[in-house]
Amino acid sequence: MNDHANPLHQLRTLVDDAAMLTDPERIAPMLRDHRALYRGHALAVVAPADTAAVSRVLAFCNEHRIGVVPQGGNTSYCGGATPDASSSQVLLSLARLNRVRSIDAANHTMTAEAGCVLARLQAAAAEADRYLPLSLGSEGSCMLGGNLSTNAGGLNVIHYGMARELVLGLEVVLADGRVMDTLTGLRKDNTGYDIKSLFLGAEGTLGVITAACIKLYPSLKSRATAFIAVRDPDAAVSLLGSLRAASGDCVTSFELIPRIGIDLTTRHIPGVVDPLSATSQWYVLCELSSSRAQEPLDAMLQAALEQALSKGWVSDAAVAQADRERDAFWRLRESIPEAQRKDGYSLKHDISVPVSQVPRFIEVAGGWVAQHIPQGVLVSYGHLGDGNLHFNINQRPGAQVAQLQAVEQKVKRAIHDFVKEFDGSFSAEHGIGQLKVFELERYANPVELDLMKRIKRALDPNNIMNPGKVLRP
Amino acid sequence: MNDHANPLHQLRTLVDDAAMLTDPERIAPMLRDHRALYRGHALAVVAPADTAAVSRVLAFCNEHRIGVVPQGGNTSYCGGATPDASSSQVLLSLARLNRVRSIDAANHTMTAEAGCVLARLQAAAAEADRYLPLSLGSEGSCMLGGNLSTNAGGLNVIHYGMARELVLGLEVVLADGRVMDTLTGLRKDNTGYDIKSLFLGAEGTLGVITAACIKLYPSLKSRATAFIAVRDPDAAVSLLGSLRAASGDCVTSFELIPRIGIDLTTRHIPGVVDPLSATSQWYVLCELSSSRAQEPLDAMLQAALEQALSKGWVSDAAVAQADRERDAFWRLRESIPEAQRKDGYSLKHDISVPVSQVPRFIEVAGGWVAQHIPQGVLVSYGHLGDGNLHFNINQRPGAQVAQLQAVEQKVKRAIHDFVKEFDGSFSAEHGIGQLKVFELERYANPVELDLMKRIKRALDPNNIMNPGKVLRP
Repeated sequence: MNDHANPLHQLRTLVDDAAMLTDPERIAPMLRDHRALYRGHALAVVAPADTAAVSRVLAFCNEHRIGVVPQGGNTSYCGGATPDASSSQVLLSLARLNRVRSIDAANHTMTAEAGCVLARLQAAAAEADRYLPLSLGSEGSCMLGGNLSTNAGGLNVIHYGMARELVLGLEVVLADGRVMDTLTGLRKDNTGYDIKSLFLGAEGTLGVITAACIKLYPSLKSRATAFIAVRDPDAAVSLLGSLRAASGDCVTSFELIPRIGIDLTTRHIPGVVDPLSATSQWYVLCELSSSRAQEPLDAMLQAALEQALSKGWVSDAAVAQADRERDAFWRLRESIPEAQRKDGYSLKHDISVPVSQVPRFIEVAGGWVAQHIPQGVLVSYGHLGDGNLHFNINQRPGAQVAQLQAVEQKVKRAIHDFVKEFDGSFSAEHGIGQLKVFELERYANPVELDLMKRIKRALDPNNIMNPGKVLRP
Repeated sequence: MNDHANPLHQLRTLVDDAAMLTDPERIAPMLRDHRALYRGHALAVVAPADTAAVSRVLAFCNEHRIGVVPQGGNTSYCGGATPDASSSQVLLSLARLNRVRSIDAANHTMTAEAGCVLARLQAAAAEADRYLPLSLGSEGSCMLGGNLSTNAGGLNVIHYGMARELVLGLEVVLADGRVMDTLTGLRKDNTGYDIKSLFLGAEGTLGVITAACIKLYPSLKSRATAFIAVRDPDAAVSLLGSLRAASGDCVTSFELIPRIGIDLTTRHIPGVVDPLSATSQWYVLCELSSSRAQEPLDAMLQAALEQALSKGWVSDAAVAQADRERDAFWRLRESIPEAQRKDGYSLKHDISVPVSQVPRFIEVAGGWVAQHIPQGVLVSYGHLGDGNLHFNINQRPGAQVAQLQAVEQKVKRAIHDFVKEFDGSFSAEHGIGQLKVFELERYANPVELDLMKRIKRALDPNNIMNPGKVLRP
């Protein structure tokens, strides 16, 4: 069983010729992760053409106790799709399962395979006059299977929920090769346990998602976008509640940006300018959107902002008058990570707390950073609408990278401890992968963690599915 | 271990005096189900006052291998909360866990205990200027724990989803008495498997939900309601897509009603009148709602209906001009079940298919009924917006009850077989309980059913949690 030459030979007989990838140049980027934190080796890199071939590969690997690492667009932030260094695992690329199987516009659903690039699915939905709300930075290369296996978040969670909430049915290949097809497109179905949700966010450790039936929405026909100077995070939370109510709950993005986010982007990113003349410590980028063509969203937003001004929540605001201006607001927000990188080294934390707790969390955890990390400066921004902050600490001008690296573990421990105190999450969007396995052990509810382990054993008794990710063997 | 006198004595020591219910008159209605299909007996009826006491009772029952049947408002349609006839099971009432623990308006969440009556939670949300969208016929007596354990549906699913989609966190007592508390109120949390979803819709067979943190929405400030004569179910589906888009996706109810629904209600329910002058074979009751105070919903609905008229989808429509009129429309819809009862015996099926398939399903399955069941007449109505039909067959005037009862099994088989052909569900809203255990075995995806059994064994190895419900031992 440890004679790898023989299994490899057998594996070849289970798939078409094009499925066995051997070109080192093509394979190399698949063996390291997006952030270059991990580099692995593989017994074989296999890209089956269809679900039946995935099934054969898994049945074979299960029989021979060979670990299988599923991979989509390979954009994981936590090393979730990178094999270990042992050369004993099979890297299973889903990239060739890339068909949009069907779009049912009247049912507002799309059925597509795991290897479809997200942006292509967005475009396919648009062609059918429907909207696929899942949207994230890597949408040009990430794939549906990875999005669902990591329960991707992104920019529209406040209105449409995480990826999990968009899924009506799945096709999954289990560890033993059996195929579970529940691609039914039903909005109501109370026939037993919610099995599909287990695979959504399991990062390929319970089975391989090969296709999904996902919800679509009416196409968006109008948008209003504002860049708003707010008094403080408390005012931003008040503004959010007020805007949700006043707009008929059509706030689809609500991003908190600190002053330093403007300073960094205007300094490092060509073309980015401060949208407002007066300065403030805190800003919000807010967008409303609607499928109504003649929706007076701009006027509605303007009126709500005037009210917020009179309440002292807001000191200044610009409502985008054209797409060019809207794009400029978004460019500022989206280039914060790049500007951070250009400015120096940073310690990153992808955390969430209840929306109502964000202001107090920033005060407490930010206060700790100011007091204990003189070599760093807080850059805390993100999706306030769903309580998700990128709570980063950047290298302060004049400080050395090594000075920040020296406190990396201490900072992580302190911030994640604060998160725990606030009933928050130490991994809001990016999952566990291999990067946060020990954090999960430390911070998870112990009873819930025990159930996760029981479920892993029940569904993958030989531990062949993405071994070592999420849970330690 | 089979000496029940001793366990009962011990059980008493684990809870406060008020928890042991012994008054036969109080207990009797708890031992039969809502529809009077089942009548059970219990070793004891226990109503603990808090989660710690529930934990002690479960740990004890697990140790002694005593089955536990959780019960909330006892409104199950499938006998899910009724003990068996053996007098060996403990009936566990959650009614005393009835506190609203907290409302966090800024986070748009409420944390409440399992024994809270749904209508009380709706009122508590309204007091905080928030909206709890879960709404169903039995809301005056059903309880949150039961709503979540059965993944309740109801009238607003098209916009807000099933109960499962409203839950952010749970407090659950496991079969062995351990308490899993994930009441965090986070909208983003990717730290491991989605454990909570397993308990939502598990009908108490995996553990006991004692509290939940659920999503709230901005309070609704405007509504528009129309009663619409449509050409046929196809036109109704087209109208739905068109209205969702035109309204900014604020269609919150979209109910299909056949002509016979109007005939039955106007005949049997005092005060119900046909809202339209011309007759049609099919109608839709549609409601838009929004949290915007000055939303021109009526005008928007009127304009969309005029367009639908010009397309031939709609032949006549009345938009409610006042609450009195709106209430009259809803009264007609909501009294169909009562009118059916008054008209005679009926065979009921709670089914769903993809929304786009509803017209063809009605044609095919309805055609079968017309051809094969001369003693019955189809009364097919329900939540078209989520593909959920109450596909009922009523006793035809002149036919005997026994004639319909004689074909009950044959009709059920035929209709559920059609449902399967259409990738639908034989239990859209009401779950499995004890009534549909065999249907689940017959129609479930066999791989998915196997996973359900594995999970049941992993979480409740001694099979003490609501034994015999959902899955056979």
